[in-house]
Amino acid sequence: MPFRSRYTGLIDKYRDHLPVHDDTRIISLGEGNTPLIRLHNVSDSIGKDVDIYVKYEGLNPTGSFKDRGMTMAVTKAVEDGSKAIICASTGNTSAAAAAYAARAGITAYVLIPEGKIAMGKMAQAMMYGATILQIKGNFDLGMDLVKQVAKEAPVTIVNSINPFRIQGQKTAAFEILEELGFAPDFHCLPVGNAGNITAHWMGYSEYHKSGIVNARPKMIGYQASGAAPFMRGEMVDNPETVATAIRIGHPQSWDKAWALQKESHGWFDELADEDILAAQKLLALSEGVFCEPASAASLGGAIRDVKNGKIPEGSKIVCTLTGNGLKDPDTAIDQCANAKMTTIDATLDEVKRTILDSMAG
Amino acid sequence: MPFRSRYTGLIDKYRDHLPVHDDTRIISLGEGNTPLIRLHNVSDSIGKDVDIYVKYEGLNPTGSFKDRGMTMAVTKAVEDGSKAIICASTGNTSAAAAAYAARAGITAYVLIPEGKIAMGKMAQAMMYGATILQIKGNFDLGMDLVKQVAKEAPVTIVNSINPFRIQGQKTAAFEILEELGFAPDFHCLPVGNAGNITAHWMGYSEYHKSGIVNARPKMIGYQASGAAPFMRGEMVDNPETVATAIRIGHPQSWDKAWALQKESHGWFDELADEDILAAQKLLALSEGVFCEPASAASLGGAIRDVKNGKIPEGSKIVCTLTGNGLKDPDTAIDQCANAKMTTIDATLDEVKRTILDSMAG
Repeated sequence: MPFRSRYTGLIDKYRDHLPVHDDTRIISLGEGNTPLIRLHNVSDSIGKDVDIYVKYEGLNPTGSFKDRGMTMAVTKAVEDGSKAIICASTGNTSAAAAAYAARAGITAYVLIPEGKIAMGKMAQAMMYGATILQIKGNFDLGMDLVKQVAKEAPVTIVNSINPFRIQGQKTAAFEILEELGFAPDFHCLPVGNAGNITAHWMGYSEYHKSGIVNARPKMIGYQASGAAPFMRGEMVDNPETVATAIRIGHPQSWDKAWALQKESHGWFDELADEDILAAQKLLALSEGVFCEPASAASLGGAIRDVKNGKIPEGSKIVCTLTGNGLKDPDTAIDQCANAKMTTIDATLDEVKRTILDSMAG
Repeated sequence: MPFRSRYTGLIDKYRDHLPVHDDTRIISLGEGNTPLIRLHNVSDSIGKDVDIYVKYEGLNPTGSFKDRGMTMAVTKAVEDGSKAIICASTGNTSAAAAAYAARAGITAYVLIPEGKIAMGKMAQAMMYGATILQIKGNFDLGMDLVKQVAKEAPVTIVNSINPFRIQGQKTAAFEILEELGFAPDFHCLPVGNAGNITAHWMGYSEYHKSGIVNARPKMIGYQASGAAPFMRGEMVDNPETVATAIRIGHPQSWDKAWALQKESHGWFDELADEDILAAQKLLALSEGVFCEPASAASLGGAIRDVKNGKIPEGSKIVCTLTGNGLKDPDTAIDQCANAKMTTIDATLDEVKRTILDSMAG
C-alpha cells in the first residue's frame, strides 16, 4: 500500500531535534523537503572528476531558504504570545516573515532598503500583507534600527539573530545527510549575513555528534566582491552588488562564521558580479535550474575552486541555491540581451522558416 | 537510522505506473513531491464545515505543474532520438519545455503570444536558452501552427496533446491519494487547455481501478469568464483574461474533459477576473500562499460553491494551485495599490513612530 503521512513541514519532521513542545501550535507552509539535484552537464564540462549536487532551496514556499528558519521563529513568537514580528531584509526574509505572519494571523513589519530589493520579493511582501517600511539606507542600517525598535515596541525580531531561525535552517543539513547517506566533502554557500552557513554547520555537527554520520564537510563561503567583509577581514560600510540578497557589509553571525570556517577547515572567497551572473546563466542554460543571482555565488565559486585544484578530484560537493530565479526577473532579463527571440507573423511559413533557419545556423 | 534514498523525480518514484523502460535515460529536475497544504484561516472564514487543501504545484522546479508532464515528454523525446522539441504556450509550458530541454541538451522552440505572457515566464524561457518565437496572435493560433510545423520539421510537440505529458501529470493525483489516505470528495482545478483535469482524472481512476482507494472525487473545472468555452458549450475565438495561463479558447482536451465531468458527476463553472484576483489575494493574505492568478480560479470557485451549497458541508476538497505567484509579479503589484507601504528616513524615531501608529490604527 502506498499510503504515507502528509508532509507538514520541517518542524513536524524534525521535532526531536528542535525546541518545540508536544502541544506547540506549528506555523507551517510545508517548507523544507527540497530537491538535491545532481548536476550532469556542468560537472562534465569542467573536465574534472567531481560530483556536484545543488540543494534547490528556491523551491521552499516563499522561494528561499528563509522559510526553514521562519517556520521556527514565527512558531515560537506565537507560542510566546507575540502579536507582531519585525525584520530588516534584502527581500527574502521579508517575504518569508510576511507569509508566515499571514498564516499565523499576526502582523509583520519589514524594513527594506529603498529601491534595492528585487521585484518578485516586493510583490511577495505586498501580497502577503506585510507593513512595509522602505528606508533611505541599506540592510545594515535597517538591522541596527530593528534591534533598537524591538527594545521599545512589542515586536519580535525574526532576523537570523533570532536563535530559532538558525534552529530551523539547520534541517537543510539533515536532509542532505539523509539523502546522500554520507557527509559531502565540501559544502558551498553564498554568504551575506552568515546565518545560513552557521545553521548548516550546526546541522552537520548535530548529526555527527549523534553518530549518524562519521564526518562533516569543509564549509566554503562565497561573497560578492563588493560586499565581502570576510575577505576584507573587517566590516564593509557601503556594500554593493547585483546579488541583492547578499548585499550586506556587517554580517550578524561574524564570530560564528569565522569559528566554523576554522573548525571545518574551509575557507571564504569572493566573486565579481559578472562571475556570479555567469554562473547563474550557466546553471540555467546547461541544467535547467534557475536560481537568483546570490545563489549562483556558491556554484560559481565551487567551479572555480575545482578548476584551480583547491577542491580536489574525487570530491562530493553540495552547493546551496538559496533562492528562486523568479524572485528577480529583471536581472535575468537584463542579462539575456542576446536571447534567441524573434517576433513574427502567425503564419506557417514564418514559423517554419524561423525554425529551419535556426536549425541550419 | 534516518537515511532514505535521494528523491530524483516522479518518473523514478512512479516508474511502475509510467511508460518507461529500465534503461530509459530519465530527464528530471526533481519535479513532483509538492506540498498538500491544509488551509486554516480561509476555511474558518467561510463559516461552513469543510476541509480545504491546496496542492501547491508552484513549488515544482520551474514553478508550475507543467514540469510533471514535461519530465515524461522530454524523457520520451530523447529516448526516441529527438533533438528538438516545440510547444505553443501561455508561458508555463514554455518555461518547463526550455528547462527540461536544457537539462537534456536538446533545443526547445517555444511559440508565445506577443506581449501576453507574464514577466517571470519570459525570464525563464530566456534564461533556460529556448528559441523564442513571439507570434502576433494568441495561444490557440500558436497551437495550430505547432501542429502543422511538427508535420514538416524534425521537432517533437510537447504540448498536452503529447500523450506522455498527461501520463506525467497524473502523478499529482497519486500523491494526493497517498497523503490523504482517501479520495477527496471534490477536486477543483483551473481549466484552460483541459489537459490537467484530464490527467488528474486518469490518476484517480488508475489508483481506483487498482483497488488502492475505493472512490474518486467529483471533478470541478473553473474557467475565466472571458475564456470559458466549457460554459459557452463551444470554442471561443478571442479569449481574454488577466489569468494569462488559462487564456485559451480552443481547449485541446475538449472531449476528454466533457467525458470526465460526466463520469465524475462534477461540473464546470466560470469566474470573473476580479473574483479570480480576489481569491489570489485572499489566499496570500490569510494563509501565506502566493499563487499565480489562474491558479486562484480553483480556490475562488470552491469557496463560492461551498457558500452556495453546491459543495456540501463535511466535504474534503482539494484545489490545485497550478503555478507560483512569482511567475507574474506585475499583476500582483498592480493589485496592491493599497499596500501598507511607506518610505521613511532611516532613523529610530521615524521607524518607531510608523510602527506605533500602525499598531494604534
